[in-house]
Amino acid sequence: MTKNSNEAADNPVSIALGTHRQGIDRLDGALVFLLAERFAITDEVGRIKAESGFPALDADREAEQRARLRVIAADAGVDPALVEPVFDALTATVRARHEEIRRSTVGEDG
Amino acid sequence: MTKNSNEAADNPVSIALGTHRQGIDRLDGALVFLLAERFAITDEVGRIKAESGFPALDADREAEQRARLRVIAADAGVDPALVEPVFDALTATVRARHEEIRRSTVGEDG
Repeated sequence: MTKNSNEAADNPVSIALGTHRQGIDRLDGALVFLLAERFAITDEVGRIKAESGFPALDADREAEQRARLRVIAADAGVDPALVEPVFDALTATVRARHEEIRRSTVGEDG
Repeated sequence: MTKNSNEAADNPVSIALGTHRQGIDRLDGALVFLLAERFAITDEVGRIKAESGFPALDADREAEQRARLRVIAADAGVDPALVEPVFDALTATVRARHEEIRRSTVGEDG
């Protein structure tokens, strides 16, 4: 089958894919809004840590979060191995953002 | 200030951080459940594509999703640069999963 005959808009497979894509788009909208809320909170955490001299990294807290995510993933019926790379990217982005906040709060040498 | 005096549990900063962490944990729970739903759909998309001979990658669809995420991020008041790495990790994980599904559907040489 060629791509063209297979991807005609009225093909049953195309219709099914289109429906699934709408579902994915709705979930992505919800994900962006939750991420916006989460980054608002982690920015505040970054400011508090920078201003009060708290260490940026807390290995115990990260390990606890990771363990918790695996439990919730099991509850939600999703393989934790699928969810973890997403949270790893999130954690790395928050870390970089906290570094930025720390630099703008205490100066480059702080 | 030492870490210990600063991180006593009754320190106002520790209390504020604890409250923020509870908020983050609640959001992460919601994120995991949305991701579980999203992976359920993308697994189904992977099966449909593998069985019907659709190409695994659709560059137009990915570009469209990326543009859409930037618009929603602006609506949600979050810098798209913070959200994109999370979706990049998600897309990479879905791609790898689709490869797995394709291999198990059509065999290693399919």
